[in-house]
Amino acid sequence: MKQAIEKKLHLNAKLTLDVLTAFVREEVTKAGFSRIVMGLSGGIDSALVAYLAVHALGQENVQVVMMPYKTSSANSLKDAEEVCTDLNLKPLVVPISAPVDAFFQNMDSIFGEPASNLRRGNRMARERMCTLFDISAIQNALVLGTSNKTELLLGYGTQFGDLASAINPIGDLYKIQVRQLSKAIGVPNSILEKAPSADLWENQTDEQELGFDYDTADEILYQLVDARINPDELATFGYDSKLLGLIVRRMRLNQYKRKPPVIAKISSRTVGIDFRYLRDWGN
Amino acid sequence: MKQAIEKKLHLNAKLTLDVLTAFVREEVTKAGFSRIVMGLSGGIDSALVAYLAVHALGQENVQVVMMPYKTSSANSLKDAEEVCTDLNLKPLVVPISAPVDAFFQNMDSIFGEPASNLRRGNRMARERMCTLFDISAIQNALVLGTSNKTELLLGYGTQFGDLASAINPIGDLYKIQVRQLSKAIGVPNSILEKAPSADLWENQTDEQELGFDYDTADEILYQLVDARINPDELATFGYDSKLLGLIVRRMRLNQYKRKPPVIAKISSRTVGIDFRYLRDWGN
Repeated sequence: MKQAIEKKLHLNAKLTLDVLTAFVREEVTKAGFSRIVMGLSGGIDSALVAYLAVHALGQENVQVVMMPYKTSSANSLKDAEEVCTDLNLKPLVVPISAPVDAFFQNMDSIFGEPASNLRRGNRMARERMCTLFDISAIQNALVLGTSNKTELLLGYGTQFGDLASAINPIGDLYKIQVRQLSKAIGVPNSILEKAPSADLWENQTDEQELGFDYDTADEILYQLVDARINPDELATFGYDSKLLGLIVRRMRLNQYKRKPPVIAKISSRTVGIDFRYLRDWGN
Repeated sequence: MKQAIEKKLHLNAKLTLDVLTAFVREEVTKAGFSRIVMGLSGGIDSALVAYLAVHALGQENVQVVMMPYKTSSANSLKDAEEVCTDLNLKPLVVPISAPVDAFFQNMDSIFGEPASNLRRGNRMARERMCTLFDISAIQNALVLGTSNKTELLLGYGTQFGDLASAINPIGDLYKIQVRQLSKAIGVPNSILEKAPSADLWENQTDEQELGFDYDTADEILYQLVDARINPDELATFGYDSKLLGLIVRRMRLNQYKRKPPVIAKISSRTVGIDFRYLRDWGN
């Protein structure tokens, strides 16, 4: 079973990289832009996107931005710099500590209690979104997203934070596929080999926080979503039923993060319901 | 012509208010919440949403938040307070000057030039979004949106800022319909009568910034979107062709603000493309 699924998750790397490179080039051009801006965290997802963007648009049209908070790991910054060196990119470094701290100083005094790690992490992700979109206005550049399919399905990300972007080239790649393509495209080893982390607090790892590892998650998600096997049937394949329940629940509860705001329908054509095709209208 | 369209835009106020109140109650409950949080600017849109929310959930489940920047008009705050008094709401006041100023101090020194009014306005809108979503985490409350259909169609709003919310009860109401319902539900006269403004700088008015008035925009938008009359045909009705072109262009160029990030399709089921119905899955 396990081997069969691994095989199905395995991509034709060259073909997929060609498709994704063309996607970035076409979508950026179609939107009337020639440049992109993106966050570079030092992790594997944003590294892969940076390589794709440079292949698609040339290094002169790619602005990467490092946005460390004061507790961010120094290694993350070093890994991000290695990508820049390899791709010949001039990064911007915009520390986010001052605005985030000013925000929580305010909130903590109003609410009389210190913010949780979760609230702090979400606020940092949103501060980075604000920074990228401000730079996008300065440089007339589209914001590229860096969330993979595993994160999107699990809802492991901040709505209107790291989940916000104009175009996301890796949103249909499971984590295991991000690893495969990153290796193929030449992402540095230090990044390929380290444990995935949102770097929200010291020594945080995604897998610790989620309570399961990405390989198992990918395997289960692939069967639920792509192979359309329902959870009850999947339980008979020998998966831990608690883990299966956890993953299914995460997918369902976080569906709202993948949707635009729900609008009350009153008229004959409603934004997001039956008014959807305007981009091509009049062309 | 004009009168005929005004008649079509005129709503059955009682029925529509009933529908919108039920919408708020049902959507909030369905998402597993009992409380909402929302920004109250002193303008007519958020005032109407506050009345709807109180009718739907009771004043004890409605948290309104005033988020003035240091240049915000004192009158806006006074108008927002009048709504709170009328609805018996205890507002929170969270000034956004400190984090916004910390942000631009950083950016201005990095880029060596002061930010434009447009960039500042967008950043303020995103700061308010960050504030509302942080409070939503503290109070376990859903964020209600306050963008109307005219703004959504014209793209007159900040993506991942004021356009971001969980549920938007007035997103299918044209500005003229927001006025009609606000009058019917009892929004104070001072709010009904003042010129619409995003209050981003002193004496700003929406209509000045847009370059046309909301009544004309509503009339044109209704015919384009709801009556499905194409721009060429509409031009023969005697509308100023420059204005018509401006409105059509705004709608098309801002379509991206009404859509989630574009994801490159690789697999058989892709988030936002053909993986859309999960909320009901397994129920």
